[in-house]
Amino acid sequence: MKDDLPPGCPLPFNDYPNVLMAHGGGGRLMNQLIEKVFIQAFENPALAQRHDGAVIEINGAQLAFATDSYVVQPLFFPGGDIGTLAVNGTVNDLAMCGARPKWLSTGFIIEEGLPMETLRRVARSMRKAADEAGVQLVTGDTKVVDKGKGDGLFINTAGIGVIEHQVSSHPGRVQPGDLILLNGDVGRHGMAIMSMREGLQFEGTIESDCAPLAGLVMALLDAGIEIHCMRDLTRGGLASALNEIAETAQVQIAIDETAVSVCEEVRGACELLGFDPLYVANEGRFIAIIPAHDLPGALEVMRAHSQGRNACLIGNVTGDAESMVTVKSQIGTSRILDMLSGEQLPRIC
Amino acid sequence: MKDDLPPGCPLPFNDYPNVLMAHGGGGRLMNQLIEKVFIQAFENPALAQRHDGAVIEINGAQLAFATDSYVVQPLFFPGGDIGTLAVNGTVNDLAMCGARPKWLSTGFIIEEGLPMETLRRVARSMRKAADEAGVQLVTGDTKVVDKGKGDGLFINTAGIGVIEHQVSSHPGRVQPGDLILLNGDVGRHGMAIMSMREGLQFEGTIESDCAPLAGLVMALLDAGIEIHCMRDLTRGGLASALNEIAETAQVQIAIDETAVSVCEEVRGACELLGFDPLYVANEGRFIAIIPAHDLPGALEVMRAHSQGRNACLIGNVTGDAESMVTVKSQIGTSRILDMLSGEQLPRIC
Repeated sequence: MKDDLPPGCPLPFNDYPNVLMAHGGGGRLMNQLIEKVFIQAFENPALAQRHDGAVIEINGAQLAFATDSYVVQPLFFPGGDIGTLAVNGTVNDLAMCGARPKWLSTGFIIEEGLPMETLRRVARSMRKAADEAGVQLVTGDTKVVDKGKGDGLFINTAGIGVIEHQVSSHPGRVQPGDLILLNGDVGRHGMAIMSMREGLQFEGTIESDCAPLAGLVMALLDAGIEIHCMRDLTRGGLASALNEIAETAQVQIAIDETAVSVCEEVRGACELLGFDPLYVANEGRFIAIIPAHDLPGALEVMRAHSQGRNACLIGNVTGDAESMVTVKSQIGTSRILDMLSGEQLPRIC
Repeated sequence: MKDDLPPGCPLPFNDYPNVLMAHGGGGRLMNQLIEKVFIQAFENPALAQRHDGAVIEINGAQLAFATDSYVVQPLFFPGGDIGTLAVNGTVNDLAMCGARPKWLSTGFIIEEGLPMETLRRVARSMRKAADEAGVQLVTGDTKVVDKGKGDGLFINTAGIGVIEHQVSSHPGRVQPGDLILLNGDVGRHGMAIMSMREGLQFEGTIESDCAPLAGLVMALLDAGIEIHCMRDLTRGGLASALNEIAETAQVQIAIDETAVSVCEEVRGACELLGFDPLYVANEGRFIAIIPAHDLPGALEVMRAHSQGRNACLIGNVTGDAESMVTVKSQIGTSRILDMLSGEQLPRIC
């Protein structure tokens, strides 16, 4: 957290004359930047959905369209690299719209002096990740910027997916009584990056959870599970995703902390560095919010899939009085899980 | 041109251990980087077309999908800014595929410390340009990087367009006898940027030609003009576009230099700074390569459109013995118009 930004207490948006790192951190300040600058200027029905991607219609076909830029540092980390991330991140945004990802574009912004071998290695990773996710890298662009005006390599990918099911999954459908499922343990990606940056050594290396989620999502939809909303747990982690949904849907959400799995190495690194794993970024984790009657079927499908072996029920939507997320701790007390105001982990994706 | 890069004589690609600015300049080195690193790794039929965008099929509909990142410096220039450019550039890539541009994604990479007002101004420009081009900005992403690790603002846009006509416009269709039309004077965009960077003052300010070309392209297609290939004249200018097409189509192209219009201010700036206007980037100019019988109709349609008032015939495809571009000068002599090996104007788009 930056000195000029009291945690949990951001200034009114208009009091920030310049962009801070915190405006990219996945918390309240980033949401304000997006709302007050971009959505205000661009304003249209697709953006109004506040979804991970836009849903557009062509010839009776429904497509999802999503984009993300990747600025992670370091470029290579245990469990992946910026290339893996650039493919899986956008694949997952499309999956969260209920779409089968099909085509990706790639935009490279290269800092002069980047070793050619780094670029080759990243390109190979992207191809491998694309093959695993079943997408094609069909068009691209390359720019080079002067030394000192970039940071090695930034990658943008945009993706198109096909919505094959009658699916209407967005925050607006979330309602009291719904259940919240999570597909695995949280905090790996963020702590894999931070451990590398800080040079931490643990007994076991923390590997990023970076993975494509589209296969698992398609399996849920194929099984007829009625998913009210999905969200992948990237910047800002589980806590931010829940807060965003609670706010958009105007509901209360209660989470049971003991049900949220965190592996020992991640817990240790979080304690050492002062992070709460509920706020740490993941790149292969998502929540599915479903009606109660679909619980047994959904858990069965998730646990049968390689990306959902450890899926479990972590909480429910309790009411619609006032948007709020609470978490019940191991000793039974309940606390409010607020959205971060700014950043916890910069340049994580 | 960099000291370590003899003009017109690049080293074998594998002899470059690191990426140079010239690898992003739109010339031979950039083509090699794309071929040897990205296309080699990603390899698929869509990329094999070597087009400005990919053509994909969904439910019987043909879509074009294109992307570009924008790293122009300065961010604001006469006739536009990075936002106008980010919309029109991708709109034009889609138009070159014969598609009507419909939806854009936007990815912002912001350097910490960028004035919020700069971002607002760019967002407003993007909205205005989108309205003028008839596209919607439907999804986006924002990243912030540390001060000193970016350069104010980079923008990526990706776009989807709908191919409404039976159009098959790509370099492979170009054949001897075809004619080459150009929609206006060349060199404005590049020299508008360079004049600002160098602090040059001319009698008239040079304004970028940055503009959306989709309306004009749609008018040509609506009129039934059989366009064999289109290419917008961005990085590397007219000369590079012609060379790329000649190489892909394996044809010879002859251009009449006197037919290529260059305004007085641009000519003056080029002489002062040592540039050849045929290599300077444009952002609202393109060539259409058509069969001879379509010449009168094509010129009529182009000249009736605001983006084609000064359209004219500038050359023809002369043979298919060996790919080559020649240009006949004002005094009647002919010279080979080669592709630049590296960069002429860095960070122009």
